[in-house]
Parts: sequence; structure tokens; C-alpha cells
Amino acid sequence: MKKIKRIGVLTGGGDAPGLNAVIRAVVKSAFNRNWEVIGIREGFEGLLNISKAKKITTKDITGILNMGGTILGTTNRGNPFQHQVKVGNKVVVRDLSNIIVRNFRKLKLDALVAIGGDGSLGIAKGLKDKGIPIVGVPKTIDNDLKATVITFGYDTAVSTATDALDKLHSTAQSHKRVMVVEVMGRYAGWIALNSGVAGGADVILIPEIPFNLDKVCAKVKERYQTKRNFCIVVVAEGAKPVGGQRIVKATASASRVELLVGIGNMVAEEISKRTGKETRSMVLGHLQRGGNPTTFDRLVGTRFGTAAVRLIAEGKFGRMVCLRPPNIGSVPLEEAISQLNTVPLHSDVIQSGRELGICFGD
Amino acid sequence: MKKIKRIGVLTGGGDAPGLNAVIRAVVKSAFNRNWEVIGIREGFEGLLNISKAKKITTKDITGILNMGGTILGTTNRGNPFQHQVKVGNKVVVRDLSNIIVRNFRKLKLDALVAIGGDGSLGIAKGLKDKGIPIVGVPKTIDNDLKATVITFGYDTAVSTATDALDKLHSTAQSHKRVMVVEVMGRYAGWIALNSGVAGGADVILIPEIPFNLDKVCAKVKERYQTKRNFCIVVVAEGAKPVGGQRIVKATASASRVELLVGIGNMVAEEISKRTGKETRSMVLGHLQRGGNPTTFDRLVGTRFGTAAVRLIAEGKFGRMVCLRPPNIGSVPLEEAISQLNTVPLHSDVIQSGRELGICFGD
Amino acid sequence: MKKIKRIGVLTGGGDAPGLNAVIRAVVKSAFNRNWEVIGIREGFEGLLNISKAKKITTKDITGILNMGGTILGTTNRGNPFQHQVKVGNKVVVRDLSNIIVRNFRKLKLDALVAIGGDGSLGIAKGLKDKGIPIVGVPKTIDNDLKATVITFGYDTAVSTATDALDKLHSTAQSHKRVMVVEVMGRYAGWIALNSGVAGGADVILIPEIPFNLDKVCAKVKERYQTKRNFCIVVVAEGAKPVGGQRIVKATASASRVELLVGIGNMVAEEISKRTGKETRSMVLGHLQRGGNPTTFDRLVGTRFGTAAVRLIAEGKFGRMVCLRPPNIGSVPLEEAISQLNTVPLHSDVIQSGRELGICFGD
Amino acid sequence: MKKIKRIGVLTGGGDAPGLNAVIRAVVKSAFNRNWEVIGIREGFEGLLNISKAKKITTKDITGILNMGGTILGTTNRGNPFQHQVKVGNKVVVRDLSNIIVRNFRKLKLDALVAIGGDGSLGIAKGLKDKGIPIVGVPKTIDNDLKATVITFGYDTAVSTATDALDKLHSTAQSHKRVMVVEVMGRYAGWIALNSGVAGGADVILIPEIPFNLDKVCAKVKERYQTKRNFCIVVVAEGAKPVGGQRIVKATASASRVELLVGIGNMVAEEISKRTGKETRSMVLGHLQRGGNPTTFDRLVGTRFGTAAVRLIAEGKFGRMVCLRPPNIGSVPLEEAISQLNTVPLHSDVIQSGRELGICFGD
Repeated sequence: MKKIKRIGVLTGGGDAPGLNAVIRAVVKSAFNRNWEVIGIREGFEGLLNISKAKKITTKDITGILNMGGTILGTTNRGNPFQHQVKVGNKVVVRDLSNIIVRNFRKLKLDALVAIGGDGSLGIAKGLKDKGIPIVGVPKTIDNDLKATVITFGYDTAVSTATDALDKLHSTAQSHKRVMVVEVMGRYAGWIALNSGVAGGADVILIPEIPFNLDKVCAKVKERYQTKRNFCIVVVAEGAKPVGGQRIVKATASASRVELLVGIGNMVAEEISKRTGKETRSMVLGHLQRGGNPTTFDRLVGTRFGTAAVRLIAEGKFGRMVCLRPPNIGSVPLEEAISQLNTVPLHSDVIQSGRELGICFGD
Repeated sequence: MKKIKRIGVLTGGGDAPGLNAVIRAVVKSAFNRNWEVIGIREGFEGLLNISKAKKITTKDITGILNMGGTILGTTNRGNPFQHQVKVGNKVVVRDLSNIIVRNFRKLKLDALVAIGGDGSLGIAKGLKDKGIPIVGVPKTIDNDLKATVITFGYDTAVSTATDALDKLHSTAQSHKRVMVVEVMGRYAGWIALNSGVAGGADVILIPEIPFNLDKVCAKVKERYQTKRNFCIVVVAEGAKPVGGQRIVKATASASRVELLVGIGNMVAEEISKRTGKETRSMVLGHLQRGGNPTTFDRLVGTRFGTAAVRLIAEGKFGRMVCLRPPNIGSVPLEEAISQLNTVPLHSDVIQSGRELGICFGD
Repeated sequence: MKKIKRIGVLTGGGDAPGLNAVIRAVVKSAFNRNWEVIGIREGFEGLLNISKAKKITTKDITGILNMGGTILGTTNRGNPFQHQVKVGNKVVVRDLSNIIVRNFRKLKLDALVAIGGDGSLGIAKGLKDKGIPIVGVPKTIDNDLKATVITFGYDTAVSTATDALDKLHSTAQSHKRVMVVEVMGRYAGWIALNSGVAGGADVILIPEIPFNLDKVCAKVKERYQTKRNFCIVVVAEGAKPVGGQRIVKATASASRVELLVGIGNMVAEEISKRTGKETRSMVLGHLQRGGNPTTFDRLVGTRFGTAAVRLIAEGKFGRMVCLRPPNIGSVPLEEAISQLNTVPLHSDVIQSGRELGICFGD
Repeated sequence: MKKIKRIGVLTGGGDAPGLNAVIRAVVKSAFNRNWEVIGIREGFEGLLNISKAKKITTKDITGILNMGGTILGTTNRGNPFQHQVKVGNKVVVRDLSNIIVRNFRKLKLDALVAIGGDGSLGIAKGLKDKGIPIVGVPKTIDNDLKATVITFGYDTAVSTATDALDKLHSTAQSHKRVMVVEVMGRYAGWIALNSGVAGGADVILIPEIPFNLDKVCAKVKERYQTKRNFCIVVVAEGAKPVGGQRIVKATASASRVELLVGIGNMVAEEISKRTGKETRSMVLGHLQRGGNPTTFDRLVGTRFGTAAVRLIAEGKFGRMVCLRPPNIGSVPLEEAISQLNTVPLHSDVIQSGRELGICFGD
């Protein structure tokens, strides 16, 4: 087994609370093994352009454990295997992965830690196949990766969503309103489900259970008939009506600003029309990605970071660390990206919710 | 001076954190004077329908000091002097204030505490003119009432906005994005200004300073040219371009759901188009009204509540309590509603902001 | 199987965030099955005195999901099987469990949900043996019950401890101080370990690893030699020196006020003496029990509450609900109380900590 | 007037949330005037040892706006005018202020910003008298400086105290306990008074009102007689019994660890003895200094920092910035330190408290 002297670390995809905890743990535990660590900026893009790689010092990681975001920067555009390159006036797709392999050598790296979601882990798998000794750390704020029971970022996101529900509760109650909140979760409804149950929601709509607006409105009406006089509705951004399509957000123009006319606003619109009740809606959006990571996320991030370094020390490449409570384990990268972790319909959380009278729209 | 035996209390207009602190202080200090307190639900509407008035007990106010919302309920529709009444198929406007005077007598109230904003205090003034012994407590989350240096609700709202800016900061930085946040403030930019300065914003747009998009975009570009590589823009909902109109929120349909296409989204749209930088926007909306009141808001609310009861005990009716630091004072109700408290252009906060390099769009 | 019409619910032992979430879930899901619920105040004491039992209404549980404490009240004194009774001038110990059985009948209860820790679950087991159809819900803020992977209360406590470490960090750094924090954990070091790792502590002392003060002081000195110039030390209240005894808190007098001279202060004292570094210490104490439960604790509490009612509906008495991620399960009450859940010495969290350079005093 | 090219900045005394906001504002607004800024570490000590002075860069102040503590470090020991110097075996007191004047020249500083409390501002006054162009920024977490209506740090401290009261409330209520909390405030009771009123305390003891334990215990008993069944007592560290002395904290030994046996524990002890009620006490201590500054503190800190730089630009030396709502003003340094800002006994907050039934021990 080759002696490790220097490793690289990068973060890819959307940011998530806890990324800095992983980076810190990777760096501190590498330093304790007398390795050098090269920080690669802006995900895999940083390996296409060697000027974006820089040695990390103790000072760089001081005080970052409880900071949101990532000190390395990230991007959710770009895949080196299918990179968009401008050739004259046209944009063509090129495989630039050889550049990455070349830069990896040029930087004299012995291994690479890639922290990222679905997309980034897929790229990691590709680079592993090209001979790069790589280790993955899973990141998904939606909690939709099957290969790990949970990962960092999700607990902070769901806490932010619950906190928002607490805040909207008093307004809803004081004004006798229906309050509709759209939270993250394109394919998996974990954030909506768990913040909804923890935040005392009356209706929870998730991608796994296509909803029937008649059922939703019946629940709203029941709340007023039984004198509760307000109603909290949580909608995952990927929720869709029975027989319907996931509603893609309308975009106001060709520019890159998303107009916030997602499923939450549409559900609010329909409830207002059909029940006549005063209804307000809001999209939590980027707030869910931000902020100081919770204790749980810092802890999982830290454990993942040291575990990734341990895998490298043991020469176990091509794997991703994962949480198998109470332990940290690892799986081959190919397994890591193959399956989506959606909410099982027979989950006891859903069962609990039903027994509490929560409407899931079905 | 008539001996007080029983008073009423009501909350009107949009809810604000600290309302319950006022109610609790009114009730506790009234009880300590051996008065009874009647809670009137849903603002002045509750005096049109006597069934909405109910005696308040110690139990009702236990544990409410740090709760958002109002235990009495509120509404921001309806003015008894110009009440919309259905007559056959038509809606006509009627002056129902005599019903209120009659119900006030029927409830055997000796005085009334009306907690509310602009609108509610105007109604209070009208009822005073009809002989009701009334005392006002100012409520405005936007901090736009001139007659009091500050009131409860605003500190919590601005803290929520600052907290959101903190959260968005790390995402903006990690992704090199422009992040545009729309906060409350239809006529006065206090929330935008103070959360912006406290949250480290680069651009702050307020109703008091019409903005020039060229100036805004120049600031955005400067941030990237000087390698800061991200930009935080705070926009008050009432901000408007030079020579422009306040942009009224588009409504998706005739229903009562507001579609969130306010000035924030439009500014984001323009920045994205003109600078080419990845831009995201969000509307903080109702989050700013919710949540546990801050220490400051609980304190001001409590002081206002006891001061209102003191005014009643002293027979000083037709007045509104107000904060004149470090003391609590009072002003006639007519003064209370006559002037808007906007941000003075020569405020040292704006001057500070300019010296720190913040762009105000002018 | 007997048809259930009415159940009782009580909370025993020290309070923990999430108790109200359990109570709410028990009551709401019982109501949805058309059962009545009797709330028994102050734990099993409430079954010795029938006046402490009262029907719970919807109003009683409104708004309690995110409230700390327990609306039923609790006590950590008293065991009906060994009850202290005054007879003349003497205090004698009596078995009063028959009174409980009698009152259970008198209240016409068909089942009882007992929410509590070690002690309360032991009483529950005893009552089950006397024929009472009882179901247990585990509560332990220290996370020291083996029969459930985790329970509610702990996540909030560890978050409060992490938050305190964050706060003390900046002071320690600004003043170049050693800061010693004593957290809960009499027999198990979970709170100290996990808040310590998540809060960036340099030294973590837990009951499971007897500590050597020379090692601790060596770590402190190393921090200053390597120019970090401050040091954060987390001590579980049950930590003890090698060969030593758990230090029982000194009590200033015969009264019931505990004087806060626990192990944390003693460790601080020794560090100060031996290293000469400015040292401060604090005892987090009751803060860890208080506050709004985290999302996680509300969720686990809610799932436990509905699961307990489900066990009753299925006639499965004499069992305690437990968490076996991702599912809720149950175990016989006798298993529930038999084993302590201490930190395994080969836990990957400890391994992670060591790899990050944290000193565990060994 | 001399053209300014380079200024120094230092922080002295105990740390307070908002110090970094001041530093950032000083540095950013100085940069915008094309000045250089030298950061002087560890207060005035840093001017005795020139190696502790270092140029501040943009990078140094990035992200510090919402961080507690001070990036410059501080100390609350040492006064250059009466410096303790070891001469052989003895410690003698020397005036080293000439060294500071010499180093100020050597560093080519044109002005100095000194951020600190009573002690630091006194030193600043002394240095001004020796010809150093100095500007002061007031810092006092206890809010005990008369020359400014308020300063940064206090709002965060009082919020932390209120938050602690919220947390202890649920425990007190669940267990029917008396909970005694000692908060900061050696000479002025602002933190105790305002957190106590905002946190719903039943008894508040402050240095300004010597307390009578009989009155305190009578209030405790009344709470139980009227079935409230718990009691929250807030004690400022400087509170003292009628006719008594401020109780100096006992120190366990000659070392520098303070043993936490302050007035809070003693009051708890007495309440427990005299009323027989289960009583717990806690000392909030350093938690009050830590944490992210509130919006208010960031704002005041920022306004103070830019105002200090403005004074320098205008050549107005020997002054301290201060808050005269709604404006920032300044006063001569000699005025700044001459008077203590204690709670006026006729403050409407105390009057409010009495009307709510709060016992102040008199």
C-alpha cells in the first residue's frame, strides 16, 4: 500500500449545513497523520483549473465547525465527463475527465475526498474507474440517498422548517387563516413529513403520496367546523396531485431567476377558491440550506470526515462512508448512487400522523 | 372620577410579536387593582357581536408572555364606522359604531384598551368621540408610527430578518450568488435598513430612497471584481425605482391568495439579466410576524400594558401610550395617527451604511 | 380482548423536553379512537390521591407540542411500593401499591400509559405484576436506557450543551482562557461526548473513561504551546479520576439546595493550579432540561405516544415502546429497566475524537 | 488638521457581544477613507509590546459581524499607568505609559480607537492627557455607563438571561420548584430587572434595592398558596440584603478559579430553609458574555465604529461616542467615566413590575 502524503478535498452540488464540519474533520485528522491537505475550490471544476487548488492550513479551518456553507465553495453546474465547452458560437459537450486525472497527478495527490450528492458521487465513481483513489462523503439535504440511513444537512433543514411552522402557527391562529408552506423535497418527502409532524401541521403533502385536493379541502373545512379555526398545510416542492405531473416552477423569463410559483402557491390558490378561507402561502426556499448546523449535523459531518480519512489510510478506495446506526460504515460508490431513499408508505411516522388526524391528501 | 370595576381589551390589525405580553400586563395589573377584564375577540368586530366577549381568568394568561400572536384573535378587515354589510345581493357601507357603543354599555365596561396600528387607533379615536372611555396601545411591526419612538413587534421582526440574512450569507458565498431578500416595510424602510446593516448586506433598498438599477448593478459587479464574489441585497416591500411606482403585488387570480411577485423578485430578475450573475430571491413574508417576541418586545409590551391600565386608573382617556426613552408617556389619540415615521434621510444609520460601502441605490 | 373506553396517562421522574409531545400524541390518537383520557398529575403520586386525576380535553393539549416540561406535572420523589409515610414522629416505609390498584379501578381506567425513566418504569413493572394493564414510554435525558436506541429529551439537552460551548468559545478565545463546563450524565457520557465533539472541545471527560489529570493538563499546555491559546473542557457530572470515586456534590447545609461544587469545578481548580492558566468553570445544570424540544425530540415523542396507544389497542400490555431505527418497536417492561446504555469505548465517535486530537483524559 | 493615514484599534476589559461589529465598522470605514488600520492585540498591553500590533486586512474582518468575542483579543488585567512589574522577587507598581506613547509614535499611528469599559476609558483619558489623539467606544455588558443611553453587549446578555428564564420556567412548573438564577450586574441591576420582567419572574433582586428575605419568602409562599405552585427568582450578582454587604464570592483556594457561591446560591439556601419548598439555583455566568450578538448590538456596534472613525476624520479627539436616541453623539472622555448608570428607583419598569405583582424584596 502506497504511503499517503498528500490528499485533496472538494465539495460539490448544493451547499448544506455540516459541509465545513466534514472539511474540518478531514483536515484535522489528516494533519494528525502528518498528511498535507489540498483544498480544491468549486467542486470538480476546481480540478479542471489547477489554480483553484490551495494548501489548507490550520488557520483556514479554525472556527468553521459551526459555520454554514463550505469554505471551499461549490457549484451545482458542470460534470467533467459531459462538460459544456464553447467552440466558436456553439456550445458543445466534451469529456474533460482526462484533465482531471492529469491535474490530480500534477498536484501530487495520493487520494481525493469528494463530498457531494448524487451528481458528485456519480462523477467520483467515474474518476475511480479512471484510476483515481477516491473516497466519497454523502451530502443530501433532502435525505434522499438510500445508501446511508441519514446524512448531515437534513437535520438542520428540517429544524429550520419546523421553526418556520412554529412562527406561522401563531399568525394563522390569530387571524383564523390557512397557511401553506412549501419546503424542500423534490423526490422524497422527508423534510415535509418530519417538520410537519413535529410542527403540528394539519395537512402534509409529499411526493410519495399523490394528493387529492378534495380531501385536502375537506380537512381544511373540518378544522373550521370543529372550531380550530386555522389550518397549517406543509407541501414538499415535489408533491403532485393524483394523476398529475410534478409542477415545474414557472420562470418569469429566460433569465436565471426562478419565479416562486411552485406547488405550494398553487395548492394555496385552490384551497382559497374552494373553501373561501383566508389563505396565505410561503416558500421557505434557501433558508433551509443556511444557518449553523445542528449538533446532530456537526456530529455526523465530523464522524464522516474522520471516517473518510480512515478509509484512505486503510487503502479502501472507491467507497463512500455511510451511517449505519450506531456505527459508521462504507459502501462501494456504485451502490451509493443507485437508489433513491423515499418515504416508505408504511413508515410508522405516516401511521402516527394518520392516527393524529393529519391529512396526507389521500 | 368614576370608580373602575371592569374593563375590556381587544387587539386589532395584523398580529405582531408582543401582543400577548401587552394583554397579560393589562390583565395582571387590572387584577391587582381588583378590576375584572373582558377579552373581546377579533378586534372591533368583537364589539359588534357580543357573544365574542368573555371574562379573562388568570389561567387564560398563564404562559402567554413569550408566545407570538394574540390569544384574543385579530383581523385586519373591517371598520365599524364603514362596515360592509350585505343587503340582498349588494354590499353596502354602513356606520355601525352605535352598535359598539350599545354593546360597550351592555357589557358594563368602564373603559376599553385598544391595541392596534394605524387603522385600529383611528377607530379608537372615533369611539372616543362618541364618548367611550378608551386608551390606545400602538402596534406596528414596520415601526412606522411617529408618535412613539418604537413599539413592540418591530424588534422581533428585524431580528428574524437579520437571522435570515445570516442564513442566506453562507449559501451566497458558497455558490458565488447574488441573493435578494424582500422584507416588510410598505412605507418605512426600518426593517430593511436595520436588518441590512446588522446582517452585512451590500445593497439596501427602502421606500424613502427611490433606487436606480444601474447603481445597484454597479455595486453587484464591484463585489465580484474585488473578489468578494457574492452579494446580499435587501429590499423593503415598498421600495420603488426612481420615477417609478410602488409595484403592487400581482395576484394570480381573483382569489385571496397573494402571488409573491413583489419588488424583490423583480429586482432579482433585473440584476440577473444585467449582470449575468447567478441570482436567487426570497420573500420573508409572514415569518417576520411570527415567533416568540424578543426580550425587548416583551418588555415594551409589558410596560405599555401596565401604562395603559394606569391611564385608566387616572381617568386619562382618549390617549395612547408611547415610548419616550427612557420613559413611557402618552399622547392624544388624534396625534397618534397623524404622522408616518419614515427613515430620515440624514439618519446616522444611513450615513454609517454609506461609510461602510453599502449601496442604497442612489 | 376488552374494549378500551378510557385510559390514564402520567409522567414521572425529572422533566425532559418532549414530554408534552408524548402526552399530546397519546391524547389525540386516543380521541381519534373515541377513548377518554384521564390525566394523572405528579406521576404515580397522583394515583395515591384520586383528586389529582382529571379528564383531559382538546383545549388542554392545544399548543403544547413545542412546550418544555409536562402539563401533568411530575416528581422525582416517591415510589408507591416503598412509600415514606409519617406515623407520629417517625417516617416509616410502606407498600401503598394496593391503593394505586384500587384507584385505577375507581377511575374506571382500562389501561395506563406511564412515561418515565428508570425509576418510573420499575414502578410500572411492579404495577403490571399486580394486574394493571400498563404501557411504558421511556424518558431519559442522559440517553442511558439500553432498551431504546435513543429517546426524546436527549437531543434537546445535547443541543443546549453545544450551544453553550459555542457561546463560551468566543470568550475563551478572546481572553486566552481555559473554560470548563460541567454537563449532565451521571452514569453515561453521551451529552458530554456528543456536545463536546460537536462544539469543538479539546478535552472531554466522561464516566466511562476514568481520567488522569496529568494527561488533561498536558493537553491544556499543548494548546498554548501551539498558539491556540485557549482550551475548552467538557466534563460529565459523573466523570471521575482514575482510581477515584464519583465526586458527590457537596451540600452547603442540610437544606435541599445543592451547592454547585461538582466535578467540573474541581477539574477547573486543578487545571488552574497545575498549568497557571486563567480558568473559568460553569455548571450548565437545569438549563439542559428546559426549553422547547428540538424537531427530533418532538418527533420521537409523538411517535412514542401514538405507538403506546397502538399497543393498548392491540392489548399488548406490560411493554415499553422503543426506537429501533427506522422503526418503533416494543420490549417487555422487565427488559426495559435492566441495562444501562453507556458509551462503548470503541464507539466511532470516541475514535473520531481521538483522531481529531481530543483528549479523553486517558 | 493633520491628514490621517494610519490608525490603531484595540479592545480592553471583559469581552462583550458586538466588539467584532465595532472593529469591522472601524476598519471598513477607515479603508473607505484610504487609511491603514493597525490591530493591537490584548488591549493596552498590546501597546507595551510592539510585536502585538499588526496591520488588519479585509480578510481579517470578513465574516466577523455576527461573531461573539473580539478578534483582537482582550484582557481585564493591567493598567499601563499602574503596571505590576516583577523586580527580583518583588512585584512593584510602575507607570509605563511613556512606553505606550513611544510605541504609538513608532507605529506611526495618527490616532487610536480604544473600545472598552470603565477601566479602559480611564486609561484612554490618561493617554489623551499625554497627547495621544484617542477616541473611545463604550463597552459595558451591565449597561452601567451613564454617558451613553445604552451600548452594545447588553441586549445580547439580557436576551441570554431571558432565554434561560424561559428554559427554567417549564422545569420549575413541572416540579413545583423555586428556581433561583443569578445573573450579571455588580453595581447596576439592568440585566436582572429587564430579563426578570421579560421572563416572567416573580422576584427580582437588584443592587439598587437592598432586599429583605422575609419579603422574598412571603412572596414565595403566596405563589404556592394561590396555586401557582412554582416561583422564579432572579438575583443580580451585586444584590445585597438590607443592612448587608455585597457578598463577595468565596474562592475555594488561592488559585484563580472562582467558586460559584455567590448571592444567588445564598438566597436559594435561605428560601429553601425558610419555606421548605424544593429549591434549585443556577449561576448563568459566562454564558451571558458569549454568543452571536443580537441585531440591536450589531447595529449599535456598527454605528459606534463608523462614528469613532468620523470623530477622527474631524479631528475631534479625547471624546467617546455615545448613543442619544435616535442619534449617535459624543462626550469628553472625562465625562464618560465619571458616573455609574444604575436603575432609577422610580423607573417605570420597576413601577410596571410592582403593578404586575413582582416582589423586589422591599
